[in-house]
Amino acid sequence: MTESNPDHPTMRDIPIGIDATGTRTEFDSMGQVEVPADKYWGAQTQRSLAHFSIGGDRMPIAVYRAYGVVKKACALVNAEMGRLPQWKADAIVRACDEVIAGDLDSQFPLFVWQTGSGTQSNMNVNEVVSNRAIQLLGGELGSQQPVGPNDDVNMSQSSNDTFPTAMHIAVEHDLTARLIPELTALADVMAVKASGWMDVVKIGRTHLQDAVPVTVGQEWMGWVGQMRDAIAAVEREREGLYDLALGGTATGTGINAPKGFSTRSAEVIAQLTGRPFVTAPNKFAAQGSLDPLVRVSAALRGVAVAVMKIANDMRWLASGPRCGIGELKLPDNEPGSSIMPGKVNPTQCEAMVMIAIQVIGEDTATAFAGSQGNFELNAMRPIVVNNLLHSIAILSDGCEMFRLHSVEGTELDREAIAGYVENSLMLVTALAPHIGYQAAAHIAEAAAANGTSLRAEAIRSGKVSENEYDRLIRPGDMVGQGLGGA
Amino acid sequence: MTESNPDHPTMRDIPIGIDATGTRTEFDSMGQVEVPADKYWGAQTQRSLAHFSIGGDRMPIAVYRAYGVVKKACALVNAEMGRLPQWKADAIVRACDEVIAGDLDSQFPLFVWQTGSGTQSNMNVNEVVSNRAIQLLGGELGSQQPVGPNDDVNMSQSSNDTFPTAMHIAVEHDLTARLIPELTALADVMAVKASGWMDVVKIGRTHLQDAVPVTVGQEWMGWVGQMRDAIAAVEREREGLYDLALGGTATGTGINAPKGFSTRSAEVIAQLTGRPFVTAPNKFAAQGSLDPLVRVSAALRGVAVAVMKIANDMRWLASGPRCGIGELKLPDNEPGSSIMPGKVNPTQCEAMVMIAIQVIGEDTATAFAGSQGNFELNAMRPIVVNNLLHSIAILSDGCEMFRLHSVEGTELDREAIAGYVENSLMLVTALAPHIGYQAAAHIAEAAAANGTSLRAEAIRSGKVSENEYDRLIRPGDMVGQGLGGA
Amino acid sequence: MTESNPDHPTMRDIPIGIDATGTRTEFDSMGQVEVPADKYWGAQTQRSLAHFSIGGDRMPIAVYRAYGVVKKACALVNAEMGRLPQWKADAIVRACDEVIAGDLDSQFPLFVWQTGSGTQSNMNVNEVVSNRAIQLLGGELGSQQPVGPNDDVNMSQSSNDTFPTAMHIAVEHDLTARLIPELTALADVMAVKASGWMDVVKIGRTHLQDAVPVTVGQEWMGWVGQMRDAIAAVEREREGLYDLALGGTATGTGINAPKGFSTRSAEVIAQLTGRPFVTAPNKFAAQGSLDPLVRVSAALRGVAVAVMKIANDMRWLASGPRCGIGELKLPDNEPGSSIMPGKVNPTQCEAMVMIAIQVIGEDTATAFAGSQGNFELNAMRPIVVNNLLHSIAILSDGCEMFRLHSVEGTELDREAIAGYVENSLMLVTALAPHIGYQAAAHIAEAAAANGTSLRAEAIRSGKVSENEYDRLIRPGDMVGQGLGGA
Amino acid sequence: MTESNPDHPTMRDIPIGIDATGTRTEFDSMGQVEVPADKYWGAQTQRSLAHFSIGGDRMPIAVYRAYGVVKKACALVNAEMGRLPQWKADAIVRACDEVIAGDLDSQFPLFVWQTGSGTQSNMNVNEVVSNRAIQLLGGELGSQQPVGPNDDVNMSQSSNDTFPTAMHIAVEHDLTARLIPELTALADVMAVKASGWMDVVKIGRTHLQDAVPVTVGQEWMGWVGQMRDAIAAVEREREGLYDLALGGTATGTGINAPKGFSTRSAEVIAQLTGRPFVTAPNKFAAQGSLDPLVRVSAALRGVAVAVMKIANDMRWLASGPRCGIGELKLPDNEPGSSIMPGKVNPTQCEAMVMIAIQVIGEDTATAFAGSQGNFELNAMRPIVVNNLLHSIAILSDGCEMFRLHSVEGTELDREAIAGYVENSLMLVTALAPHIGYQAAAHIAEAAAANGTSLRAEAIRSGKVSENEYDRLIRPGDMVGQGLGGA
Repeated sequence: MTESNPDHPTMRDIPIGIDATGTRTEFDSMGQVEVPADKYWGAQTQRSLAHFSIGGDRMPIAVYRAYGVVKKACALVNAEMGRLPQWKADAIVRACDEVIAGDLDSQFPLFVWQTGSGTQSNMNVNEVVSNRAIQLLGGELGSQQPVGPNDDVNMSQSSNDTFPTAMHIAVEHDLTARLIPELTALADVMAVKASGWMDVVKIGRTHLQDAVPVTVGQEWMGWVGQMRDAIAAVEREREGLYDLALGGTATGTGINAPKGFSTRSAEVIAQLTGRPFVTAPNKFAAQGSLDPLVRVSAALRGVAVAVMKIANDMRWLASGPRCGIGELKLPDNEPGSSIMPGKVNPTQCEAMVMIAIQVIGEDTATAFAGSQGNFELNAMRPIVVNNLLHSIAILSDGCEMFRLHSVEGTELDREAIAGYVENSLMLVTALAPHIGYQAAAHIAEAAAANGTSLRAEAIRSGKVSENEYDRLIRPGDMVGQGLGGA
Repeated sequence: MTESNPDHPTMRDIPIGIDATGTRTEFDSMGQVEVPADKYWGAQTQRSLAHFSIGGDRMPIAVYRAYGVVKKACALVNAEMGRLPQWKADAIVRACDEVIAGDLDSQFPLFVWQTGSGTQSNMNVNEVVSNRAIQLLGGELGSQQPVGPNDDVNMSQSSNDTFPTAMHIAVEHDLTARLIPELTALADVMAVKASGWMDVVKIGRTHLQDAVPVTVGQEWMGWVGQMRDAIAAVEREREGLYDLALGGTATGTGINAPKGFSTRSAEVIAQLTGRPFVTAPNKFAAQGSLDPLVRVSAALRGVAVAVMKIANDMRWLASGPRCGIGELKLPDNEPGSSIMPGKVNPTQCEAMVMIAIQVIGEDTATAFAGSQGNFELNAMRPIVVNNLLHSIAILSDGCEMFRLHSVEGTELDREAIAGYVENSLMLVTALAPHIGYQAAAHIAEAAAANGTSLRAEAIRSGKVSENEYDRLIRPGDMVGQGLGGA
Repeated sequence: MTESNPDHPTMRDIPIGIDATGTRTEFDSMGQVEVPADKYWGAQTQRSLAHFSIGGDRMPIAVYRAYGVVKKACALVNAEMGRLPQWKADAIVRACDEVIAGDLDSQFPLFVWQTGSGTQSNMNVNEVVSNRAIQLLGGELGSQQPVGPNDDVNMSQSSNDTFPTAMHIAVEHDLTARLIPELTALADVMAVKASGWMDVVKIGRTHLQDAVPVTVGQEWMGWVGQMRDAIAAVEREREGLYDLALGGTATGTGINAPKGFSTRSAEVIAQLTGRPFVTAPNKFAAQGSLDPLVRVSAALRGVAVAVMKIANDMRWLASGPRCGIGELKLPDNEPGSSIMPGKVNPTQCEAMVMIAIQVIGEDTATAFAGSQGNFELNAMRPIVVNNLLHSIAILSDGCEMFRLHSVEGTELDREAIAGYVENSLMLVTALAPHIGYQAAAHIAEAAAANGTSLRAEAIRSGKVSENEYDRLIRPGDMVGQGLGGA
Repeated sequence: MTESNPDHPTMRDIPIGIDATGTRTEFDSMGQVEVPADKYWGAQTQRSLAHFSIGGDRMPIAVYRAYGVVKKACALVNAEMGRLPQWKADAIVRACDEVIAGDLDSQFPLFVWQTGSGTQSNMNVNEVVSNRAIQLLGGELGSQQPVGPNDDVNMSQSSNDTFPTAMHIAVEHDLTARLIPELTALADVMAVKASGWMDVVKIGRTHLQDAVPVTVGQEWMGWVGQMRDAIAAVEREREGLYDLALGGTATGTGINAPKGFSTRSAEVIAQLTGRPFVTAPNKFAAQGSLDPLVRVSAALRGVAVAVMKIANDMRWLASGPRCGIGELKLPDNEPGSSIMPGKVNPTQCEAMVMIAIQVIGEDTATAFAGSQGNFELNAMRPIVVNNLLHSIAILSDGCEMFRLHSVEGTELDREAIAGYVENSLMLVTALAPHIGYQAAAHIAEAAAANGTSLRAEAIRSGKVSENEYDRLIRPGDMVGQGLGGA
């Protein structure tokens, strides 16, 4: 801080980056720590790196970008409320904008498996923003002056309210920007395919056994219905994310934050994100539990349950090519076997099924973690946000790949489809209202036993004439109209 | 059928019961089966008993009572649409009313582990209603005349649409009549307790470690908030149950049902139950999936996650009596130990925790089953309805017991509560905005290291005067106001 | 106690039953309680009934019968060690023999959802044995004289060591007497079927797509291999059950039990049961955890995973009859549809799949409960023993039904099987070592595209002569020998 | 291939790396594909990258290193059996050695979410080894000459047997080299701590309530017992990994592999790894299921269940510092709060608990995937190997951090520990054998109600004299001896 008034230093337009090698001494309340000199982070980040080097799982970067929004909003409100000098707020906001833009992504190295509150990631943000602001203001890195990580960047905040807030912002973002559009796109493509095949009569199957006819379009619209209901459930549970814990500070009471901070900071976050965030009415529930996120996880599981059924149906309907059901022809994307020449497999469906199972497993972990809160904090937060963001990512990407490389290119084997309808014994169902269930059953059983056609056995039974049979057994008339049943 | 016109037999007021011993011959399309002569059921029920004697799990009786509603509605609509003679419909309705009233409960002996469609339970109902109607009409039991199980009782229906419909009616009933009221009662009692303790300052705890103060009322209202959000989620997902599959018949197309049957039958069910049932817009989704029930299950899991946290908090806060936290005094309901005299345990909390874990486990099974549908039917229905109704039952009863025998009688140990607040080092937090985080930390660390009081170390530090300390460190001022944070 | 020396009353041969109506006053350390006069149980059982009326789940009777063994063994050892007069021990043993024989089953009404230690069930046993012994000795019911529930029946014991011991005995019994024999019987029947079909060449399927041939026997022996490995895992984890907690008493220290009680009581239990029980070397692990039972649960899950695959394979191979794979013909056990005449479904397979899913769900609950111990006790015991015994029951019965009603009667559709082999393009694999993978792939692709035979395209390709083709493409030569691969 | 005999090209010592930019044309049976010119992979790898860009999860590198062993062993055996020219085998072996050493790690970019058989990763290896061998032999990259990916590198193999084999080798390696040593180290450190504290008497706790005394050493040895039993279970289930599928090729029959290949290739793998691998006796079970890996996953879950209990116990025993139990003093690794100065939290325990929950969730996914096999292949392999290796990694690292940063530095608060013992009412248990359970209970109840000492109430009761009390109530005598109970 050479040229400027120490009480009011001037912010300069210094590009991101620290031109230094070796280490720099940082400190926290426990003492001094050496950190890599070219990094913005401070003592607590470095401590966490040393203590929690566990697996390869890093706290998702989406959490930090959301944290950028949180810290920015808090600086703005702290300034607005007169707690933070405007020049400090300006520097913090500038640094936060860089966090939000992803320009500081490399400064957030911490592992998922850390303190259950996410405090270390909060401090990582506080330290990076502090040092970046210090740099912008011409101060000395590591001095915590003139912008301290706890006293300024974390002003009016706690990890206990900011981490939940960042979780909500990050998860809401990925739901809104990525998952829901991909799910919708997949459902829409299936609906387009369905509409083109609405009149293609095929055999229905229940219990894996031949049943009465449906149309290909009806079958596909069943899948679309599942998808759309699952999307609606995601949207419903997304609502719970709009309630923010910010302003509850350490235990929900709001200690050390000024009156009105909750409401105002949520308003600012809503402005910054363009999403309808508000302050949570009950901070003790918001911080003591992870319940809204457990409910979002359940909605993701609902998507998984639906796509698993769809992907399974598709691969079974495409089974063959000569020894399976073979109604669908999926795109030949790649050779399927290293040993069997010419084999092509339903690999997109398999990936989708595995993704669904993974999402279900991660949801189990999330719900378990959700149940393990104690008193004023559920300290199982990093595992939950990591699982949610991961599940969202693989579902989103998986649905995109599945749509592009499987659903869009799927075609019908109309010959196979027609053949099944012709041979099926379950067309006998249409006789039942006329000749009774038991008589109809005996006709079907005779055809099955004798390997004959339903028509032959029906006429031989004497219960219907040829004319009656041909009038009653019209598969195209058996499929009803549309999706609503009778 | 002696005295009446065989085309229009007269229904007589015959009490329930068959005065016969030994066996009676019943038949179905596969042939004859001997059934106990004093039972109304027929051949297919008897076959199922022989083939599926698995464990002690019987299809819940609530499913059959809901089936009574389904069969009654169908008979009424079939008659209204001119497909079923009124006199047959009358007899079926009479028998269904007896099913609904529970008077025929003993006629439904089948196991949960049966066909995945629930067809055997549907046929059990069809057979019982058929024979009871035959009895009322003076016919011969087992003759399927003049009211046949398939052709009359099951008219315009399939297991594939009636079983899902009965599932929805049964689950909706138990949610509405039992679970939601019990959850609400529990939340309400906790809210009453909370309001009486809204000003009792206590130590907050995060990470199991001492934190800044809250009030007992705030803590309890955190629990209430979790409960009420969980109840709202149950109510949201209950909405999905109002869409009924009825009218989809065998595969969703509505084959063998008259046009308009879907809409009209749902209307009648709504009238009979007083609940807003409608016909599902997409029968292929309704029959091919169990997704709405998977979502209800997830909502139950959400309740479990919340009550588990609450029950755990309560038993930890009541831990002791002399070597634990000891802030709460739970009612002494029973001696706790067979060997340690005078020991009393938080048994209601333990039961609640076990119930929560069981609900979570059953939800895992339900979601798994929900993912295993194929084509036009998810044939994993009995396991799902059994788990849902069981989870609802143990949650409902468990919350009632927990409320009556634990929550209502819980009292505070105010002396212990006050003592903790007085001793806690975390009151130092209120100094941080005035002297800075690092300086405040050093005060707390010194008190911890020296076993001294915070006040003594604060003043020794020279950062605050006695007056300042006493003005700043007022626990009652640190707890904010209400639930909304700052 | 009229005629006998009060210090040494005579045991009389009084049949089970209390000829009384109304209520009887019982007491415990908290005071008096009225119990039904015709029941043997006492105050604590009655308190538990009042406080834990939750759902319909009763503590499995197998736990009580195992408790009979525990109490008998303890009485014998207490007498042997001079702590309990022989005449008291004799009366206790007599009552325990009645418990073991099931003659007192109706005296154990408590719910699963009770205290997490199972203390209430232990006290139920103590009370029933006490009052039955009192009755046999001519004393006054409810007087706790001359045989007290705590001081005599529970002598040298705690719930904390007896309940785990009873759990191990009960679970070991049902594994040994029921599950392992049923699993073995199923595997053996499948092996017999397999041996009869060892030379029937069929198409293999991977990724649901046609692959190179296997034999039906090889496929079935794959299932048998899974079953036998799963059985071996159950047997491995059963070993953990032989370590008994008895002698650890309240916290594992053995307080109030005489030296040597652990070892000696385990020996007696081993004699009484004929199974190799020993005392657990580490009582703190045995009482503080449920880990051996969690491992048994995992082994049950392993069985579920295997049978699910087998049941799914069977129902897919039997899919059809005309629009599916149709290689297997399962027995026609019952009509499959209430609306579709002549339909038969793979219901035994479906029940098996649902059972597998349920076992997996219950295992989730068991493992969760297993993780929730605290300090010297895992107080999640009733949920664990209930889930384990339930899973064992439905797996055992389910495998029996599946074997009797599905596997034993399964037959082959040899025509269908042969047709698939003949048509499959994957026979081309045998050409690859001779003409290279890529050339072979082009032949298969051409046949697929042209709808021609593999032979025609192979010869047309010029890569092989007719003679070469016919020599190389012999499905029967492609299946190798036995199960061990190349 | 300039200077050497084309039938026998000379291998040159060319360093790893391709000095080229842009793309290179590769081909497979479906046609040509452009790949980055500086990469060794070929057409199928590139296709997979395009079709399966899903999330950030890459197939774990451990799988590829294990695949190096598989391909090397196969080349050696193929040469030994005369199927592969020695010079080709030499080049393949050289490339495989580079894979094993990790020198080609960057050549394996595929995602986890791909074909369920892992074929794409197998082809990735085949392509990389092929091109690297071609390079070493002076051939043209992408020409598949003179070493082809399918015909040479994959000779006598299929994905269906090599991928399971690589899974077993990779998982076995990480269990043996990483997890078991870390678990053992943790257990050993705890045992050392325990032995130092074997005589420190502390209050026992059951149901979270005060119970009879134990020693700190006993409590810790309870944890050690859990750990050691869990390790033994991991070792037991590791046995199942030694059975290799290699030699089963496409469906288990061993088609296209020479007789004896199974046995011999397993022998070579055993030599290369120094681990007791053998050929699986039943290739149809080995390829059609994932059961041995599901059982390993269950053993990992068993570890998770144990460490969760231990970590929870530790953090509760360390709760405070002034408002909790406070018996243990965990190391102060880092400031715990961004707002509460001086707060230190049990963060290592929290990370451990989250890891345990994650492992349990991943195990759920693994078991689910294990149940979803069909016919000759369980095509859910990538998800399973990814979850297993991930769970092993976080458990291993987590236990190491937990040991280094929490367990090793844990100390006792002996004052607090002694105070609890002195105050506890449960010492009354030692009176029960002398004055009876009910009388003892009344003494404890009186002390609790009056807030008096046990001694005072005992003497006031008249049941014991002062001398008797002081003789009977010696906590140090109540803790028994060692771990075996009475």
